[in-house]
Amino acid sequence: MTATTTAIWGVGTSAFGKQTSVGGPRLAWQATVEALDDAGLSAPDIDAVFAGTVFGDPGTVTRCLQQIGIAEVPVITIENACASGTSAFHEARMAVETGRFERVLAFGIETMTAHFDGAINPIASDPDGAQGFAMPSIYGMSATRYQHEFGVTPEQMALVAVKNRRHAVDNPRAQHRKTVTVEQVLGSRTVADPITLFQCCSIADAAAAAIIGPLGGSRDPNQETAIRSSELRSGRLWDHTAGKVWGWDIVAETAARAYEAAGLGADDIDVFEVHDAFTIGEIITTEALGLCELGGGGRLVESGHTGQGGPQPVNPSGGLLSRGHPLGATGLAQIAEIVWQLRGMAGERQVPGARLGAVETMGGGTAGIDGNACVVTVLERVGAGG
Amino acid sequence: MTATTTAIWGVGTSAFGKQTSVGGPRLAWQATVEALDDAGLSAPDIDAVFAGTVFGDPGTVTRCLQQIGIAEVPVITIENACASGTSAFHEARMAVETGRFERVLAFGIETMTAHFDGAINPIASDPDGAQGFAMPSIYGMSATRYQHEFGVTPEQMALVAVKNRRHAVDNPRAQHRKTVTVEQVLGSRTVADPITLFQCCSIADAAAAAIIGPLGGSRDPNQETAIRSSELRSGRLWDHTAGKVWGWDIVAETAARAYEAAGLGADDIDVFEVHDAFTIGEIITTEALGLCELGGGGRLVESGHTGQGGPQPVNPSGGLLSRGHPLGATGLAQIAEIVWQLRGMAGERQVPGARLGAVETMGGGTAGIDGNACVVTVLERVGAGG
Repeated sequence: MTATTTAIWGVGTSAFGKQTSVGGPRLAWQATVEALDDAGLSAPDIDAVFAGTVFGDPGTVTRCLQQIGIAEVPVITIENACASGTSAFHEARMAVETGRFERVLAFGIETMTAHFDGAINPIASDPDGAQGFAMPSIYGMSATRYQHEFGVTPEQMALVAVKNRRHAVDNPRAQHRKTVTVEQVLGSRTVADPITLFQCCSIADAAAAAIIGPLGGSRDPNQETAIRSSELRSGRLWDHTAGKVWGWDIVAETAARAYEAAGLGADDIDVFEVHDAFTIGEIITTEALGLCELGGGGRLVESGHTGQGGPQPVNPSGGLLSRGHPLGATGLAQIAEIVWQLRGMAGERQVPGARLGAVETMGGGTAGIDGNACVVTVLERVGAGG
Repeated sequence: MTATTTAIWGVGTSAFGKQTSVGGPRLAWQATVEALDDAGLSAPDIDAVFAGTVFGDPGTVTRCLQQIGIAEVPVITIENACASGTSAFHEARMAVETGRFERVLAFGIETMTAHFDGAINPIASDPDGAQGFAMPSIYGMSATRYQHEFGVTPEQMALVAVKNRRHAVDNPRAQHRKTVTVEQVLGSRTVADPITLFQCCSIADAAAAAIIGPLGGSRDPNQETAIRSSELRSGRLWDHTAGKVWGWDIVAETAARAYEAAGLGADDIDVFEVHDAFTIGEIITTEALGLCELGGGGRLVESGHTGQGGPQPVNPSGGLLSRGHPLGATGLAQIAEIVWQLRGMAGERQVPGARLGAVETMGGGTAGIDGNACVVTVLERVGAGG
């Protein structure tokens, strides 16, 4: 649809994990200064900011930015649930694509551990969440349906966690870096049957950032990552009368548009970061992204296709299951991982020769049925890469 | 800067007030269906949604929209504090201006009375707010400084409330429609000295909406309202080392850009809706908008310049002080009021012959120092008007 005219000039993240005492401003500083350095820019070079946060109080973002020295420019703070970070990325990219701004910071932050340890539990305050209809239950129901419809086994589900934890051993910024076995995953306590504890992502504190500008416009164009396409859709996640579960249709539709806009197909993508908030989520998402047929996601992970060394690694960072899921920061951490992979900077977790990568994030409401946003982005290496 | 190529095709709001039992979805339905009817559109005509809410849980907006029949389109939910509604309006307008979408819904919602009556107080949960550095204190300090610097009197401050309450007698959707006297305003209990209760806006439940599309593209172009300009800035609201208080500079800078983009000055504007969250706020804002000199805002309201019948009425709706301040809905209610004024639909509160109108909204963080956004929009009558 649109020509490739925008690029990621630089990325950065804080560490991910329980960092209650570090605080938002310092996490923001870590992520943003790394991204600015990576892009060869300093704070006053930024023309506008699109930021993602879900639980941040009003003022969270501007307070962080002004300590970095980014002030007096437009700041748009976006809350699109789990897809807040990639929604901010999408809007930042569109702002450059349409000529509104030249050097835009896409930024995401969430400091969750302080809030959720205390009296405030935003999900419990939601009328549906208070009835137990929260995220783990929704994924639990999806998993039950998938086991019934397609014969997905508990072991196949557990393999997603095993794979992603294995990947995270090589990701020094991930929250959980110890490997787990299928037996350990299935033996951990049940959260929402058949989802066990090690099949759930954890809350965390972190920030992540990306600088977006015109393709070829940065100080070192060979270090840019081209944005081949970015699509954002909202809509119903689950039609109870249809066979497909949570998110399948909206991910498939968003991905189809992103592939079309980029002029390629799923087979062309070398590496993916996807929204594995729960193990069944990655299984469903790999199907909807076109890596295999409907119902084939369990066999896909079992085959090794999506593991390191396989033809299309999924979540080489360890995914949400290992990195943790600080909502506003997650999407931009996914973007950062793919940028590092395409530039050959991913160290021990490098996917050899990766040239094309894709990021998928799904933002559901606390009520689970109505999707805030699904974002799919296709990125391409510009320079020689790794 | 940009040519006038976008217009407001229709607007709508719910009533404003304590409507705890009505609930967000029904308020959203009232506002959005009115805006759609006004634009001659139905729900499936909408291409994208930019929504504003501050305290809404994730999923609040998509749940509202899907009950109206707006689904499967991109939804971007923006939290820019008190300016969330006009930030959504600004982004919606830019999305049309840059050709991303053709028929965009700008939507704002806040249901506050249920939350603030209960255990959750988001401002108290903020570290600065918990220390008492919340909005009333900030405006109280601003007022004290203004009394010292410029001799603004308690009576002049009270006159803002007297004027806006008088205006709201003719606004059937306002929360507070009884007139008050200077004595009553100054005699109401002190909230943050010298700010008394009747000088504070109240929390409320409401939704508001506007449909934005290309200028001349709607079914009845004579009923469109041209968007002459819209500017959004973020940045520091208060420099303690400078003489100017809370928000002056950012409002002045944003307004100057909006006037320049529209090719006009403050004197050309016939009617304003401004962010009178507290009485001193309107005094400062009228100065920063260029209606009078620095420090002259007290004398301005005293002169009757900004009252109904004066040359430049400010807040003919009654403003936040009368309408109530459901954060996400406020900015779009301000937009709706100016649209009604320019189209001659404001009934008993009509400003005769209004051709040009402006809206200003200020979004501060709970910590008060770092501004989330100031938005200033200039609108113009297209058809014969009232």
